[in-house]
Amino acid sequence: MTVQIFGHKSPDTDSTGAPILWSWYLNTVKNITAIPRLLGTPNTEAAFVLNHWNLEQPELLGPLAENDPVIIVDTNNPDELPENINTADIQAIIDHHKLVGGLETKAPIDITVRPLACTATIMLDLMGTAAAAQMPKDIKGVALSCILSDTLEFRSPTTTDHDRAVAEKLAADLGVSIPAYAAKMFAAKSDVSAFSDAALLRMDSKEFTIEEMKLRVSVLETTSPDTVLARKNSLMQTMPVVAAEDGAAHVLLFVVDILNTQATLLVQNAAVKSIAEASFGVTVDGDTVVLPGVVSRKKQIIPQLKT
Amino acid sequence: MTVQIFGHKSPDTDSTGAPILWSWYLNTVKNITAIPRLLGTPNTEAAFVLNHWNLEQPELLGPLAENDPVIIVDTNNPDELPENINTADIQAIIDHHKLVGGLETKAPIDITVRPLACTATIMLDLMGTAAAAQMPKDIKGVALSCILSDTLEFRSPTTTDHDRAVAEKLAADLGVSIPAYAAKMFAAKSDVSAFSDAALLRMDSKEFTIEEMKLRVSVLETTSPDTVLARKNSLMQTMPVVAAEDGAAHVLLFVVDILNTQATLLVQNAAVKSIAEASFGVTVDGDTVVLPGVVSRKKQIIPQLKT
Repeated sequence: MTVQIFGHKSPDTDSTGAPILWSWYLNTVKNITAIPRLLGTPNTEAAFVLNHWNLEQPELLGPLAENDPVIIVDTNNPDELPENINTADIQAIIDHHKLVGGLETKAPIDITVRPLACTATIMLDLMGTAAAAQMPKDIKGVALSCILSDTLEFRSPTTTDHDRAVAEKLAADLGVSIPAYAAKMFAAKSDVSAFSDAALLRMDSKEFTIEEMKLRVSVLETTSPDTVLARKNSLMQTMPVVAAEDGAAHVLLFVVDILNTQATLLVQNAAVKSIAEASFGVTVDGDTVVLPGVVSRKKQIIPQLKT
Repeated sequence: MTVQIFGHKSPDTDSTGAPILWSWYLNTVKNITAIPRLLGTPNTEAAFVLNHWNLEQPELLGPLAENDPVIIVDTNNPDELPENINTADIQAIIDHHKLVGGLETKAPIDITVRPLACTATIMLDLMGTAAAAQMPKDIKGVALSCILSDTLEFRSPTTTDHDRAVAEKLAADLGVSIPAYAAKMFAAKSDVSAFSDAALLRMDSKEFTIEEMKLRVSVLETTSPDTVLARKNSLMQTMPVVAAEDGAAHVLLFVVDILNTQATLLVQNAAVKSIAEASFGVTVDGDTVVLPGVVSRKKQIIPQLKT
């Protein structure tokens, strides 16, 4: 039975590319029939990557039946997966996020979580150098894209020397200039003109409960922060609507300026102001606050959040 | 700060030995200060192994303070760990059991779960052949013991070819005869004369909830089942006491005959009789039932249990 491989519900480059990468490995090297799936529409960067490497966009995952074989990548959070995920036959988990608890398996399986920047890096380690050397150009291209995306071209503090070395080897094999290629990826990610305010707020967004307050923590990584900040007023008007619809107390939107490695937090109300001041040791004056050096939700935002 | 490494609350050979093995690796190869700990008294087989290889018995884990660095091995079940485990700084998990959910980490960490028979086998894979070759005799001896114990000398259906190959290589390096050494280990495990009935029922025991009924599923692996079965009447009288104290509906004791690869289930009451008949397709006549071929709780008992 074909195993379906997928990441989380907001497919960025890693969550779109890692299932493609691992499907290639299982089909080609391990002789296991596997197919990549998506749990949502890929973001504009992931769509660019698929197009650039001439890869077909994976189909959306259909309804999961009990005991359907699946492999979960780039998340271990049931909230980011199909509602009935624990009734499926989860055969493996490959991830680089903190363990949140909640996933259960029916038997011992392969679980590999590593504190690396990117799922693709872990996959290349798991397959080993001999298998990795067999990857065709498009698969190498996808792996490189995942690493450049998740590390923001090595700017994010989540970047490890190992992620960087793996990416540089892939780029050298492919004859790709990392700065030129990453610039194209980030330009694609920055083109958010087609998205509604609500879609932007939910595009790269995770829910976290801080001191019993549920927050929607949204990030927009861009090389053109002014384009997003020009929509500030309507984004802020949409925040309470999105929060109410999603059962969150507030939406925190961090507009991450990739090139200048800083974030601008939109301060929609007094509660967010107080969270911003308590969490980042800043004084908020007005409806935005710049957080120098902050680019990583995982390393620099979530661990700081307090009310 | 020293990282404390431990397994579950009922230390068998793997849960006693794997922390010793991984501490050796971290201290010697990775230059990380680590110390093995116990969460209970090692069973008689684990005590024999420590003595045979001249290893000091690890100390009991003291109270865990918030953010104490720990590494969890041979379990991912919070019920089998200190109550405040999620407030510790869990730095890694190495395990071979199904994922039960409930453990949480504060950041992405190293998690390695593999469907192998034994935690020690996974550890040797993780350290790689170069590091494994550096293991001194006592550490090799502990690793071999863990594999022989968890596989019941390759009799258990949890045994993989890889576990077997790793054990045979260790035995060859050490000049140890596997049958002779395993016989000594199993004789030690079978010497349960010093234990009270209640201690026997809790020695190698896990709680499982089957159709909302909490069961204490206890296993006694022995080369001398008659010795245990001679205590049948007093064991059965103690079962309701243990069940009540531990908040379980019933205690199921499987006396596993290692050499003849079969289990005898003690049928203490009508409910256990009905569970036995529904789960194993047998007819119970009297207060015991023999289950031919059954030796593994993980593979052959738990997946079958129904009420």
